[in-house]
Amino acid sequence: MKKISLLGATGSIGIQTLDIIRGHQEAFQLVAISAGRNIDVVRKIILEFKPEFVSVQEKVDCETLQTEFPGLTIGFGPSGIEEAAVYNKADILVNAVLGSVGLSPTLKAIQAGKTIAIANKETLVTAGHLVMEAARKHNVSILPVDSEHSAIFQALQGEQAKNIEQLILTASGGSFRDRKREELKNVTVREALNHPNWSMGAKITIDSATMMNKGLEVIEAHWLFSLPYEKISVVLHKESIIHSMVEFHDTSIIAQLGTPDMRVPIQYALTYPDRLPHPTGNRLSLAQIGKLHFREMDFDRFRCLKFAYDAGRAGGTMPTVLNAANEAAVAAFLEGKITFLQIEDLIERELTKHKIITNPDLETIQEIDEQTRKSVLSLI
Amino acid sequence: MKKISLLGATGSIGIQTLDIIRGHQEAFQLVAISAGRNIDVVRKIILEFKPEFVSVQEKVDCETLQTEFPGLTIGFGPSGIEEAAVYNKADILVNAVLGSVGLSPTLKAIQAGKTIAIANKETLVTAGHLVMEAARKHNVSILPVDSEHSAIFQALQGEQAKNIEQLILTASGGSFRDRKREELKNVTVREALNHPNWSMGAKITIDSATMMNKGLEVIEAHWLFSLPYEKISVVLHKESIIHSMVEFHDTSIIAQLGTPDMRVPIQYALTYPDRLPHPTGNRLSLAQIGKLHFREMDFDRFRCLKFAYDAGRAGGTMPTVLNAANEAAVAAFLEGKITFLQIEDLIERELTKHKIITNPDLETIQEIDEQTRKSVLSLI
Repeated sequence: MKKISLLGATGSIGIQTLDIIRGHQEAFQLVAISAGRNIDVVRKIILEFKPEFVSVQEKVDCETLQTEFPGLTIGFGPSGIEEAAVYNKADILVNAVLGSVGLSPTLKAIQAGKTIAIANKETLVTAGHLVMEAARKHNVSILPVDSEHSAIFQALQGEQAKNIEQLILTASGGSFRDRKREELKNVTVREALNHPNWSMGAKITIDSATMMNKGLEVIEAHWLFSLPYEKISVVLHKESIIHSMVEFHDTSIIAQLGTPDMRVPIQYALTYPDRLPHPTGNRLSLAQIGKLHFREMDFDRFRCLKFAYDAGRAGGTMPTVLNAANEAAVAAFLEGKITFLQIEDLIERELTKHKIITNPDLETIQEIDEQTRKSVLSLI
Repeated sequence: MKKISLLGATGSIGIQTLDIIRGHQEAFQLVAISAGRNIDVVRKIILEFKPEFVSVQEKVDCETLQTEFPGLTIGFGPSGIEEAAVYNKADILVNAVLGSVGLSPTLKAIQAGKTIAIANKETLVTAGHLVMEAARKHNVSILPVDSEHSAIFQALQGEQAKNIEQLILTASGGSFRDRKREELKNVTVREALNHPNWSMGAKITIDSATMMNKGLEVIEAHWLFSLPYEKISVVLHKESIIHSMVEFHDTSIIAQLGTPDMRVPIQYALTYPDRLPHPTGNRLSLAQIGKLHFREMDFDRFRCLKFAYDAGRAGGTMPTVLNAANEAAVAAFLEGKITFLQIEDLIERELTKHKIITNPDLETIQEIDEQTRKSVLSLI
């Protein structure tokens, strides 16, 4: 029985993680969760899964729940998330929170020796060197949950790192994959949220449309698999059936395929190195799909991907700026305050003016993160 | 340094195996070979690779070579092949002979404790139970060289057999993939030999056109991976880029991809579990290829595939009949004695009239093999 602490339980990945736990009650037990403000869903989770510790964002929600569930231990705010992350009975932490707020609890959980299933890519983007160093030091596994990184992780089983020629991340192209740059000027939030393949949260769906999601994944892959950026490439693959690939130096490529269902990589992270039957999953029929398409990535069309490679290569605090500027700009776009293409412009401006600090510690990262967000907001 | 004995050195797989040895002289040494009647090529191999033992088909060729290379040990005929197969300095036997003649030397090499890299699928088709039982008994690895089985073998690295949902073999469809059955009546040998993707020997190219090659591969997969026939499926994939796949019970599929280059699976069998750089190989660019196509297999169009599944499921001596009838019929087609569609008819007739002997020993298999060939010839 694997005991699970789940951060971001009411988000898209969180809910799908609960699906997996529900489908394999013989294998998994939910012992702790953190959530935001969606108290109705938290109530349902408490009733169904009976976690021992629950953390919510607001003190007032914490108090309400405490009245309703007097026997339950309930926390709130950043300290509540951290308490959930290091909850002593948990074997594995599923980090499915959104944005760089996931960093500090991840580091705490690593120090506490928890296996980390990481869906929160911003954590690795903003502070990959700290996370991976801590993981090495505490001999903790960082298991990818993102479908692309899970695909690569699966493709690497039984293989040796020295034989890797390159990782090939596939990119669907997002909501606007078939539009030219000129056609993006007046796109609406609603159009941007209409992802062709994957049903995901709002922020990541916008990131897919700007291709920043793939950029963040390139940086994430750099850290997870300890490879230089020249060994990480991206190919457009609109069906999202091949989730990603590894090319070895004998020219052989190992790929992982499947229907676009996040529960498959989530479950793999929870069962690794074993696999369990998918409780509800649709099987892939390539004959039914008929065709898979591939196209070279266009760095002029998808500027955010270039920003990400550049920021990743520059290193130091630059990926923190990339990520913080992106989070702030995407939030502003979702609130209708800026246009779609202004997301790129705002990120570019922050990257251009930033002076890199090399090998930053956690405080420096958090400071640069905050400064960058403020700077973006001041321009809106 | 791995020491290699190579059976079938002058055939298509043999020559490509020599390419790999030539490209990695730091890793491989050729110590013994067997060949047929192509003495000119044998001479060149002796001069370049300096094997210690050579066997040819005919006594007269053996004597000629002995005069030219007085210091070399040279054999001939079936006993010569067996001597090459068990050559005491060899660590690994690459069995690249054609047809069921590869069976006996393979069994001898297993008894001698050699690792077997098997390109000779007829051996496993005709006597899979004997080969795999001997391999288990002598704790010997049987490594696939066929691109499909190598793909599956690569996809299975780091995985557990209990988690396999099915193996999915890909089939290019061969020379006539886009023709209807009615259009096959008058096809010529030359047309049949024009495979769209792979450059291979004549027999296997005809087997690809009849889809018997895939049928033999299904039976081979059954033995290599110890799976029942209902867990082995075939999908048409005309580009031959995905070489085959494994679906696990969590719906995840692991595939191996590459350009159609037999040297990749040959080298993998020689380097397994490691990989070495491909000495000359072209890397695969999916963006350049653009599209991959998949289609359901049509068992009425490709009757030989159905014969193979039926023969495999029936078991006993039935696959021996399937294979022997096919070898005899294909030879007759290549000699212009029968039409393309008569290959199927001849095989069907042999299968229909055969009375299965269960759990046959080597002698029984060889007897049934010979009877079947004679029976086919008597009908031509």
